Amino acid sequence: MRDKYTYTERKCMGIGVLWSGDHLFPGTNETLELLRSRGKQVVFVTNNSTKSRADYKKKLESLGIPASTEEIFSSSYSASIYISRILQLPENKRKVFVIGETGVEQELRSENVPFIGGTDPAYRREITAEDYKKISAGDSSLIDPEVGVVLVGLDFHVNYLKLSLAFHYVRRGAVFLATNIDSTLPNLGSLFPGAGSMSAPLIMMLGKEPVSLGKPNQAMMDAIEGKFKFDRSRACMVGDRVNTDIRFGLEGKLGGTLGVLTGVCSKEDFVNGSVKPLAYLDKLSDLLESD
Amino acid sequence: MRDKYTYTERKCMGIGVLWSGDHLFPGTNETLELLRSRGKQVVFVTNNSTKSRADYKKKLESLGIPASTEEIFSSSYSASIYISRILQLPENKRKVFVIGETGVEQELRSENVPFIGGTDPAYRREITAEDYKKISAGDSSLIDPEVGVVLVGLDFHVNYLKLSLAFHYVRRGAVFLATNIDSTLPNLGSLFPGAGSMSAPLIMMLGKEPVSLGKPNQAMMDAIEGKFKFDRSRACMVGDRVNTDIRFGLEGKLGGTLGVLTGVCSKEDFVNGSVKPLAYLDKLSDLLESD
Repeated sequence: MRDKYTYTERKCMGIGVLWSGDHLFPGTNETLELLRSRGKQVVFVTNNSTKSRADYKKKLESLGIPASTEEIFSSSYSASIYISRILQLPENKRKVFVIGETGVEQELRSENVPFIGGTDPAYRREITAEDYKKISAGDSSLIDPEVGVVLVGLDFHVNYLKLSLAFHYVRRGAVFLATNIDSTLPNLGSLFPGAGSMSAPLIMMLGKEPVSLGKPNQAMMDAIEGKFKFDRSRACMVGDRVNTDIRFGLEGKLGGTLGVLTGVCSKEDFVNGSVKPLAYLDKLSDLLESD
Repeated sequence: MRDKYTYTERKCMGIGVLWSGDHLFPGTNETLELLRSRGKQVVFVTNNSTKSRADYKKKLESLGIPASTEEIFSSSYSASIYISRILQLPENKRKVFVIGETGVEQELRSENVPFIGGTDPAYRREITAEDYKKISAGDSSLIDPEVGVVLVGLDFHVNYLKLSLAFHYVRRGAVFLATNIDSTLPNLGSLFPGAGSMSAPLIMMLGKEPVSLGKPNQAMMDAIEGKFKFDRSRACMVGDRVNTDIRFGLEGKLGGTLGVLTGVCSKEDFVNGSVKPLAYLDKLSDLLESD
């Protein structure tokens, strides 16, 4: 099994496989260079919606990894494409209410999608008695009648007001989308609330799930394929999470799926879980040794 | 069926059945007077943990309803009793990390349970790079080693920092409790995020449910019975929600369950739902007419 992935034509590679926090795993750069020197197309696929593709390019470059914006697929980009090109919104319902950070906003702007919420300081405050009245009454000074989509990504400033507004917009008919539904976000060797944790209260209140535009949702794979026209049978998904990365590759019928142990999942998960990668490695740079 | 509840000896009555916001439903006082004049024991049972029993007594009196603190059972009181009298916590793990408002704090104090979090302004802020480090390292300047319980109630100031801390405490072994798990909170004829929406992110991240000390959990019924020594077969639960109030009465094997249409549930819910009250009325004061 070990040889399989080294012969695939292209690689979709989850960020997180490459670094943790600001720590680049040793041998990462050499491994990417090796793959590229063998003519493999590298695509960086990330569910983290807090950064835009441009932000990720900077991050990659700061770690010494050359990359172009076009090689990067983030869930915020995927969601923006879905809203602008796939959803058929009525003329007067094109605005997006965002729970999320600047990455989502930048990608919505790049697709000319109007939005409210997000990092706007006007929403970073306590709910007031006046807000309750306005929300209940659908008062247009707080409830924008043009909102037709609620997009939920990771928001470090999530609060009661934002959740109340998101709930009301969906109840009034807005489409419920999530950049991704990872419950946790790895950081510094530990776990913190992920984008799924922002959707969780709304899922409980509404009794329905959002359409997720991140891994493992195949809308994201379709978008990547639309852009790169690659042969799925000759591509390999590398990732550290079975329920997002590996499932993404398996359901996308890629030729290979490769788990790495530098992230969230353990050997036990890869070997005995209900969703298993075709192969796994301690770390990505083990590819160098197998050369 | 209509006659059944008027002959029950006692009544457990959910707050919300009596008023909405600051609006007391017409005839509420007269109905309570009638029941009391017939020798019925009235108990006010509420899942709202943001207020203490003392706060509720004030609220009732402000609406002209005479009540004693002893007649009131709130989920914050129920949770405090559970922590102080039922949980057997080790000597060095007796502190509670609270997601919630002052009602929880007041009831914990009344049972001499030490706690952190809650309304403390130190937790009402953005998460910082320093916090990530401290949480990951379990640094005792932020992570209190004596925390043995995480208690989650409705918190209008819930934020990313509080959720991160609650998650880490439970992962480190703290008991995961909720005052109640109502997904929504009715206000001004509309719905807002309830206590269950505060637990939802943690449930998703941890992959486990909290022990809930509110309706329909029978720990609350046992506590009420412990206090009032009433005959369950001669008691009737009056409520507006099938999944909390009515289920609470049915699973508690009370003689009667009465749904009212002044709150969350509709006639459709009461007649065709999977959990059904024995009888229902448009409003509580219809009891006056049936007299």
